[in-house]
Parts: sequence; structure tokens; C-alpha cells
Amino acid sequence: MNFCSDNVTGISLEILEALGIANQGVAMPYGDDELTQALTHKLQEIFAKDLTMFPVATGSAANALALAVMTPSYGAVYCHPLSHINLDECGAPELFTGGAKLVLVPGEQGKIDPDNLARMLESAGAGVVHHVQPAVLSLTQVTECGTVYQLAELQALTKIARQHNLLVHMDGARFANALVSLGCSPAAMTWQAGVDVLSLGATKNGAMAAEAVIFFRPELAKTFHFHRKRGGHLFSKMRFLSAQLVAYLDRSLWLRNAQHANQMAANLAQGLQNLPGVNLLFPVEANEIFVEFAPEILKALQDAGFKFYIFDGKSLVRLVTAFNTAPEDVEKFIKVAIASSAKLN
Amino acid sequence: MNFCSDNVTGISLEILEALGIANQGVAMPYGDDELTQALTHKLQEIFAKDLTMFPVATGSAANALALAVMTPSYGAVYCHPLSHINLDECGAPELFTGGAKLVLVPGEQGKIDPDNLARMLESAGAGVVHHVQPAVLSLTQVTECGTVYQLAELQALTKIARQHNLLVHMDGARFANALVSLGCSPAAMTWQAGVDVLSLGATKNGAMAAEAVIFFRPELAKTFHFHRKRGGHLFSKMRFLSAQLVAYLDRSLWLRNAQHANQMAANLAQGLQNLPGVNLLFPVEANEIFVEFAPEILKALQDAGFKFYIFDGKSLVRLVTAFNTAPEDVEKFIKVAIASSAKLN
Amino acid sequence: MNFCSDNVTGISLEILEALGIANQGVAMPYGDDELTQALTHKLQEIFAKDLTMFPVATGSAANALALAVMTPSYGAVYCHPLSHINLDECGAPELFTGGAKLVLVPGEQGKIDPDNLARMLESAGAGVVHHVQPAVLSLTQVTECGTVYQLAELQALTKIARQHNLLVHMDGARFANALVSLGCSPAAMTWQAGVDVLSLGATKNGAMAAEAVIFFRPELAKTFHFHRKRGGHLFSKMRFLSAQLVAYLDRSLWLRNAQHANQMAANLAQGLQNLPGVNLLFPVEANEIFVEFAPEILKALQDAGFKFYIFDGKSLVRLVTAFNTAPEDVEKFIKVAIASSAKLN
Amino acid sequence: MNFCSDNVTGISLEILEALGIANQGVAMPYGDDELTQALTHKLQEIFAKDLTMFPVATGSAANALALAVMTPSYGAVYCHPLSHINLDECGAPELFTGGAKLVLVPGEQGKIDPDNLARMLESAGAGVVHHVQPAVLSLTQVTECGTVYQLAELQALTKIARQHNLLVHMDGARFANALVSLGCSPAAMTWQAGVDVLSLGATKNGAMAAEAVIFFRPELAKTFHFHRKRGGHLFSKMRFLSAQLVAYLDRSLWLRNAQHANQMAANLAQGLQNLPGVNLLFPVEANEIFVEFAPEILKALQDAGFKFYIFDGKSLVRLVTAFNTAPEDVEKFIKVAIASSAKLN
Repeated sequence: MNFCSDNVTGISLEILEALGIANQGVAMPYGDDELTQALTHKLQEIFAKDLTMFPVATGSAANALALAVMTPSYGAVYCHPLSHINLDECGAPELFTGGAKLVLVPGEQGKIDPDNLARMLESAGAGVVHHVQPAVLSLTQVTECGTVYQLAELQALTKIARQHNLLVHMDGARFANALVSLGCSPAAMTWQAGVDVLSLGATKNGAMAAEAVIFFRPELAKTFHFHRKRGGHLFSKMRFLSAQLVAYLDRSLWLRNAQHANQMAANLAQGLQNLPGVNLLFPVEANEIFVEFAPEILKALQDAGFKFYIFDGKSLVRLVTAFNTAPEDVEKFIKVAIASSAKLN
Repeated sequence: MNFCSDNVTGISLEILEALGIANQGVAMPYGDDELTQALTHKLQEIFAKDLTMFPVATGSAANALALAVMTPSYGAVYCHPLSHINLDECGAPELFTGGAKLVLVPGEQGKIDPDNLARMLESAGAGVVHHVQPAVLSLTQVTECGTVYQLAELQALTKIARQHNLLVHMDGARFANALVSLGCSPAAMTWQAGVDVLSLGATKNGAMAAEAVIFFRPELAKTFHFHRKRGGHLFSKMRFLSAQLVAYLDRSLWLRNAQHANQMAANLAQGLQNLPGVNLLFPVEANEIFVEFAPEILKALQDAGFKFYIFDGKSLVRLVTAFNTAPEDVEKFIKVAIASSAKLN
Repeated sequence: MNFCSDNVTGISLEILEALGIANQGVAMPYGDDELTQALTHKLQEIFAKDLTMFPVATGSAANALALAVMTPSYGAVYCHPLSHINLDECGAPELFTGGAKLVLVPGEQGKIDPDNLARMLESAGAGVVHHVQPAVLSLTQVTECGTVYQLAELQALTKIARQHNLLVHMDGARFANALVSLGCSPAAMTWQAGVDVLSLGATKNGAMAAEAVIFFRPELAKTFHFHRKRGGHLFSKMRFLSAQLVAYLDRSLWLRNAQHANQMAANLAQGLQNLPGVNLLFPVEANEIFVEFAPEILKALQDAGFKFYIFDGKSLVRLVTAFNTAPEDVEKFIKVAIASSAKLN
Repeated sequence: MNFCSDNVTGISLEILEALGIANQGVAMPYGDDELTQALTHKLQEIFAKDLTMFPVATGSAANALALAVMTPSYGAVYCHPLSHINLDECGAPELFTGGAKLVLVPGEQGKIDPDNLARMLESAGAGVVHHVQPAVLSLTQVTECGTVYQLAELQALTKIARQHNLLVHMDGARFANALVSLGCSPAAMTWQAGVDVLSLGATKNGAMAAEAVIFFRPELAKTFHFHRKRGGHLFSKMRFLSAQLVAYLDRSLWLRNAQHANQMAANLAQGLQNLPGVNLLFPVEANEIFVEFAPEILKALQDAGFKFYIFDGKSLVRLVTAFNTAPEDVEKFIKVAIASSAKLN
């Protein structure tokens, strides 16, 4: 009954069990353990690439630490105005990069508009000492509007970035949700599409607290471990981060979890889409729905016990489904909406 | 057989079970949950004080974030040369404080010498624009030499700090080990002794990854949550940090774990102390032993399968015991040492 | 013949002479000298206020250091997209504030639109840990479009700032030009209009390298001197900064210089305004003119030896006049423009 | 009569005149002017090296900006405990480097002891993630004790630095004083001795406010201009910094000034050295004298109108001579000291 966020959920049972198994015996600290090694191999296999990876515990840490090695302090990170790194991390990128600037590139439906990006980069003053220097393009996949960049869209953006010598970061807090939405391979959605560094989220999709920063070009990662340690993000009992991620990737748990969450969102969207007093704001392509409700419907849903965030305090609602969203909750939600919609004249 | 560190161990079963129990149902994120509330009450009860607390996942995060709100960027943190914040955090305090300076105050056995502290503060140039401004005294309890400040020693140091308007931080990565060593109350070893902010460690003593930053003067904590978020250290599924800490404190688990670890170290020390070719460097007051071994003994121990860090690469060994150190391992260690010591002529 | 900027000019003779006079005898360093004291009194008199002030040498230093004490590292500075602190300081505000975020508030003619400001502040998430916290409104007077905020405009903006507990900074790199444009008192354009901290520029208006950071609420300035020193901006031979500023303010030199520069710009604007092939982009209210030229006119001006920046590399020109712009140069510029305009069909 | 510092003096007349001459005509800003170009050539000639240089206005700026490009934020700068960067810049190096750590290497007479340096670097933990990474050796020439490193001493230290892959910085706030003391070439005391980057001071030796950061390996300087701008240290009317430095170097003014200052210090030292109640603490090798005076002598000197800093507030005095110290003042100082010394029993 709680659609506030995918972080109100707990832990996938497979992942919880993996913690117990990892607890057998001793392990050398700070990543010098078998589970962390296994995780590297697993990711290399899944992404079909000789990558370097670093587990951390939060998405903000993953993003900020990734950016810390991708831009100099006098650099600029091009991102969408709604991006998590801009809006929801209380300045973490600025802290970890030593004060780099986030330059906001607008675009519809949470996606950076390639024309805007090209135009802004052309007038950015690369090489001119007065201006911060373009360094990184950061893309959010799934976007903060619940939409998903198509592969061609990713490629178009990273091509522009490459033309201006930018590195490309992907904030994949909901990476698996995007993956099952597109039905493509992890490689296709990342390095084959021009992504250099990925923040691979797991926490929102069934882990307790685990993300991985993945470098598809290992030479970019050379100093990352110093930044991670210096940021207080190097776990001594690292095996318990790695155990979560191994279990997350094992037997396609990540895809199954995401598949379920996306399906629940699709069901919700389908049930709500043509109702009077209900207005879906964006295409529902993953596990988030942004919807305006008439006041009567909103009230009916709240009275029925549903929880969700109202972004503007009035009518603009975000609904997030998760790996363990109960289909009955979705059905009931739709029923309540239909019933109260029907009462509108 | 692994005495490298207390972080090579896993998780206390009580804490592991608590994660499973916490996994029931949904919980609002970022600390707005019942377990986090329970933890606050628990700590207030244990410390007999109206305190403010913030769970984080690593000791470096706890220390660096605590310091971030205790000193301005142009401030100075007085600490021991061997302190973790100086030697073992790759500059995390400098990052989170915006570049404050750690001023090193020497002293025997890992303890800051009060005369050195007083002398250095008197010539520090408080108020003079050319010099970083004295802001914080940071004490490590248990010290990095495995010794424990007596209450009178703590009081003497915090009194000097107070005379110079410094705030006092305690790095309590092994706080419980110190507590059972002194046999005093948590209050006596902290705020009653002049400590303003405590990094309360749990990871080394049976938690998976959990520490708490505790402010005994809540007014000092006002901006802490922004720094924690900005540092990437705000966990969305916070209940799993709080669950670890609640279980850690429940039914005196923390004290029982520390008691065991300390006893194992005491046993080790007693077994080794008078052996030829073995030289204990510091009083063994908690769960760490610093010892020089004759080369033959060192080799015999390694050949027997014991693991430990050799700090100088030659003879200087640190042995750390933990909540789950097997008494048999300690006995065997001593036996091997005795046997190889006996062969020395 | 050089209209590139007001910084291509040299030093007003009165100011150059003042350096020679200040060179008599010894003076205690770092501002503990008579000239710096005299400057404080002079500014207090001119601004009719018990203010605190700090000389520095560059405008970027003045702005960034002012902001360093006005916002926490997790704070947000609201400013115009075209503002110097955003576009032309290579991230200096980010460096000196420890990574605060510049939030861009659009508006016509280089001025922040009050409705935009109010709307953005209302949804900024004050108090919410995920978001940077609104801390400062920074206004640029003269704006980067060469326009001047009217007093009522300033008051409207600072009132909104005050309602949201923001401090107000004014980037007065061309403060004197604005002052003579409005014909008001320094007090009316600053603290009486709600400005807390002023970067008072002199370099662009006849000084060699001298600005003053002025705090109209001295309690805000308490830690400024540490930040200035730490930024490498505390001059040992401070008297030579203060000497420039005293001479600048003495016998209304600053106003006379600005009056001349503004007059030259007005003359230019009047001569150009109705010419075919010439398009003035903004009202000319101080000493800057933004103008689009037909290619033939642009070429004719360049061929005649005039120098200026072409912002888009094609047709968008900025002309800046200064305290020592020769009226003949202005007349000649207009003549060339008229002649080549006349040739357009 | 003022021996407080070489920064209580004014400007050499040659340098003051150069400002007037530089004030002729317009010049493009930010270093794109003839005087800055001339300065580069002058320095290349003087140092016999294809170097890159950047004028700034203060010594703290020169040092901190140099270090900003020499160390990563997780790096360590090895320097003497008494060094200006450690004691007298209020944390400027920490600000500009993003929080690098200054590691203090003790040694007699203000000089880093090579054995200490080697020992500390060997145990610094290069490559180990927990520790800040050795990055820079910073040497102060003239030292803060008024002594001068001999060329062989410099070479020995830079050799150790090189063996550990450190870059070498020289804080040459009193570079000319050291040069005339050693009687060697600028090349011999810098790049030929293993120095990579020099902060060349002029302010203390006759300039108004001018220093140059000199890179003897231009590839190290690639990003310096961004850091300088970002630090607010890029002067728009740069020609006036360059004019000072050109005049400073022209016709050996810098050497003549330093020669005079050193001679005055030598005279003082000779006059004081065998007096009862007077104790010279260090060899006097440049323009600074550190001396303990009996209370009666101290009082007599103060009564006679002499000004100087008393470092411990009691008896430990620093006397600094300058380019324009009057020989009569020195003679009088000695006379007063002799007279009051004679009265001691």
C-alpha cells in the first residue's frame, strides 16, 4: 500500500540469505576477499567487458565518487535539471569533485535534448580560462521522469559528448528497470552506447544498501580507490557489500525484480490512463508513474490507506513500484481510482 | 587463526538475525522509521543523556563527518600522530572539513601528552589570521596502541581543550573494548569526562557495517544531516543500519563481545609476556597486542598458519582479537610461541 | 580605439600618484596601517553606515570570498545565468564556499525576474536534507547586459530573499557606473535596499587592482579575514591596496570616472541607435553596449582599427567604455558606422 | 628603525617608476600583453631554461596554487614544521589542493633533515589506500630560520624526493637573498638542483605585490591557469604585475636589493654576536636574525624606538633587514645593544 519509493521496501530474500552465507568464516578486509573477486568476474561476464568495479553503499556515493575522478575541480558536468545529482544529493558532486559545476541541459520527459547539449557545448568556452571546462556528460537511466532513453538516444548524446572530449557517466540507480524496459543487453545500454562509467544501482531493486561504480575503461579508475577511502566509503567488511551484489546478479534476480516492478507500474498505468480526473504526465516505461489526480480521487486514495509523495503538495503524485509490490495493492489502487473517478461529474 | 584485525570477522548472529527481522514490511526511508527512533531512545538511556545521534556505515565516515561540523575550514584538529584520522583515512577529515589541518600532539603509548597539548595550544596563535585556528581535540579510545585512557587522563585533556575553547571529539572505533576495560559507565567515559561528540564504533565488534555519531550537545548537530547527505552517507534503507545498532546494544551484546575480545587479548599477552624473543611494546588493555618477535618465532607462527600484520615488514606484529576469537586459537598461538621461544639460545 | 573592456585601460593618474605617496616611510603589514584605517572611515562616511570592509585585488576574489562567509558548503546561491560568478570565474565561488551550488534564476535584460525567484525559492526544499539549502541571493549591479536595477527592483528582490531567510550579496564590479546612472546615494543602492554584502569594484573604473568587500552587517564578517588569508588574498603591503581605494573615493574620482564612461556609452548608443544594420540589444544604462552589426558594418569598424569582443564570433558585439575613453574615438566609431550603414541597401 | 619584517618596507623606486611607464596606453587583459611576454623571456634568460611562468600578487597564492597542480587531493606535501605553508598561510595549501595533507619533516636550523625525509617516505605507505600519497617535497629557501640550504643539501633532498616519485617545490619568498648568499646562478639553485616548481618572491624584496610561479617542466603547468583564475588570482590588468617583476629583474635590481638586505643583517649579526646577554640562535646567512636578548637589552632597544617581533612574547626576537634598511639604523641598533649589554653584570 506504500508507493512512496522503491526504497521503502526491504531486502530480496535471496540477498538476505547471501549475507548469512557470507558470514561464514573470516575474510580479509577492504575488498581483498573472494566475494569481491567473484563480483568482478560476474560483472565482466554480464557486461562482456574487461571492466573495473568498486562496491559502495549508496547511490549518492556512487555518483559523486564517479564524478570525482571524471572531472577536474574546474570542470563542468552536463546533466538534466531534474537529475538526482543536481536535485537530490545536497551537493555531493560538488563536495567530491572539489567544486565542479553542474551545468543543466533541459529536455522533455527527463531526457537531455541533444540540440540543447550541442549548442551549450559549442558556446561553453573550452580552453578559455574564465569558464569552467566541459568535462562530463551525466545521463540518468531510468530518467527522473520514469522514462527510458532508447539506445539511439543514448548514442546520439554520447556522440556529441565525444566530439567535445567529454567523458560519459550514467546514473543507473534504476539500471535494471531500464534494461528490462529496453530488452537489450547491459553492454548495449552502456559501453557500446558510449558510456564510460556507470553507477549501477541495486538498493532500489532489492539490495539492502549496495551499488557498484563500474569503469568500462579501467585506465579512468586509477585513483578511484583513494577517493572512495577518503570519502569514508571503503567498507572494511566489504564482503557484505559484494555478497549483496553477487546475489543481486545471480540467476537474473536483478532482472526478475525489475521485471516485476515494471509490470506493476504498467498495470497501474493501464488502469489509470483513461480515467476522468487522472492525467499521466509521462510515458510509463519503467517503475515510476507521475500522475495528476483530481482532488476527490487523491482524497479517496489516501482514505483507502495508500501512501505516496505529492510533489507539489496538491495534486502531482509520484507512484513507485518495486520488486515486491503486491499485485493486489495495484488492483485495489486502480479500483479506488476508478470508483472515485466515476463520481466526478 | 587470523589475528590481522577485528574487521576480518563477520557479523554477530544476534545482529544478523536483526537484519532479517527488520526486513518485515515497509519502512519510510532516510531514518524516518521505528528502528531508528528506537535506537535514539536506546542510546539516550545507555548514555543517560538527551543526545542526538546519526547512524553511518564506516568509522572514517563517522569521524570525518563529526569533524565537519566541529571545525571551520580554517580550523585545526589536535590529535595524536598515530590517530586513525591522521594516518588511516587517506585525508577524509581534510575532505569533509573543507581542508582543516590536523595538528599532531605526541605522547607515549598512543596517548596525547597533556603538557604537549597545553604548550602547543598556548603558542597556536588563536585569533591571529596567519594561523589555522584551534577548534577540536580528537581523542582515540581505545588508542591506536591498544592502550586505554583512564578517566582522569581524559578529564585532564578535555579540561585543557575547554580552556582554549576547543570542542572534544572521541574516536570510539573500539569504544566498547575501552568501556569494559575501564569498567565505567558510557556516560563517565564520554560527556561526563568532557567529550562533546562520539564516533561510536560497532563494525569492529560484531556489526556488519554500522557506527553512530553521537552529539552530547544537540545544538552542535544542527547541520550534521546536510553533511551526511552531501557525503553520500545517508542510507535510504536506514532501518538496516539502525537494526544493527539496536541489536548491538541490546542485552549488552556490545559489552559481551568486547569482554570476550579483551579476554582473548589478555590471555595472549599473559602467555607471551615473559618469553625470550618476545617483547610486548605496550600494556595490553583492550583487544590489541603490539609485540616484537624474534625471527624464528615469527616464522614458526606463520608456518603454523597464523595470520597477522607485520607493521615494519620484519618483526613488529599487531595481533587483534575479536568478539568471536576462538580460545583454542589463542592457546595454540601461545603454544607455538613457547615452543619456538624455547629453541632460541 | 579599444572597446574590448574597461580592463584594457590603465590607472587613473590620481590613483597612480597615490601609490607614490603611500610609498613614503614604513607601514605595518596586513592592514594594520593608516591608509587602511582611513579607507574604513571613508567608506563608513560614504555609505552612511557602521560597516566592516576588506580590500582585495580582484573582483573574483571579492565575490568568492564574500560568498564564502554567506553560505554553508551545502548552500545555494541564487543568481542570474549571465552573472559573473556563474559564467566568468571558472568556479571560484564553488572553490571558496566548499562546493555550494549556484542556482540560476532567469530574467530579461540580465536582471533576475522576481516571480522566477519567488517560485524557485518556494519549491527549493528548505530544510529538506536532500536539497542544497537556499542561502544567498546575488545581484549584479550594473548587470552583465549593461542594464541597471532600479531601486524598486532591488527592493522587490531583496524582500523575497528576506522572506526566505537569504542573505543578499551585490556584485558591484561596476558599482559606480550604476550609481551615477541612478543618481542615488550609495546607501540607497545597497543596505537601504536590502543588500548585506557588497563587492565594490574599482579596477574597471580606474584602479590598478583594488576592490573592497563591504559588510553592512559587521556580524557577518567575523570569519572573513581567515578566509581572505587562506585564499592567498591578504596583502602584506596592504597600504597599496588601500591607497588606491582612498584615492578612488577621494574628491569623487569614482563618480567622475563612471560619469565619463557612462556618457561615452550614451553617446555611442545615441549615434548608433537608429542606423540600418545596427541593433541595440538592451537599454544602455551604464558603460556597456550590446549590439548586433550587419557584417559590412562590423568589417568597416574592424578595418578602421576598432577593437571589441564579438561574443558569438559573428555579429554580436560588446562595446565597453571607460573612465578614459576618448570622445574622438566615440565620434569616429559612430562616423564609420554611419558611413558603412549608409552603404547597405 | 623597523625590523619587524621585510614587508613593512615600501616599493623600490625603479619598480614604482615601472608602474607609471606601464600605464601608457591600453593593453589586452589577463596576461595577453607585452610586459607579461617580456617577463617570460626575461625569466627564461635568467634561469637559462624554457620555463612557464605565472605572475600572482602574494606569496601564499604562489605557494598554494603551485601545490594545487602538484598534488592530488589525497596527496601529501612533505615540508618543514616551520615552513610558511604549514604555519603562516591559515591553511591555504589545504584549500587549493582540495585537502592534501602537509607532512612535517623536522630538521635543525629550519632545514629538512634528509635522513628524516628518507625514513618517513619509506614508511609512508605509497600505493596503500588508507594513507595519503606522497606527492610533493616543498623546500623553503631562505629557510624560516634565516639559514640557506647549500646546493649539495638541496641536491641530497631532491634526490630522495625523486627516488620516491615526488615533485619538488621551492618556496622562494626570499629567493634573491638566498641567491646572493650562495653566490650561485638561479639555475643552479633550482632546476639544476632538482626543483620542479618555484614560488619566486619579489614583494619582500622591493616589489609592491608581485610573485611568479615558475614551472621548469612546462608540462606540469598545463592546468595552472584554471586554478589561478578559480582562486581569484588572475589579474585583469596583469601588465602591472608583470611590470613590477620586469623592473625587479632588470639591471639586477633583485640582486642589488637582496645584497643590501643581507649585508645589513650581516652587520647586525657581527655587531651583536659576542655581546653578553645576546644569543644568536642560527647562522645569519640571509636577511633574518633570530636572537635572544636579556630583558635589559630588549627594553633598551624598545626604548630607543626600535620595532621588531618578539616571537615568544619575552625574549626571542626576529630582526629582518630589507632592501632599504638604513645603515645608520643598524649602527644605532648595535650601539644601543652594546651599551645596555655593558651594563649587565
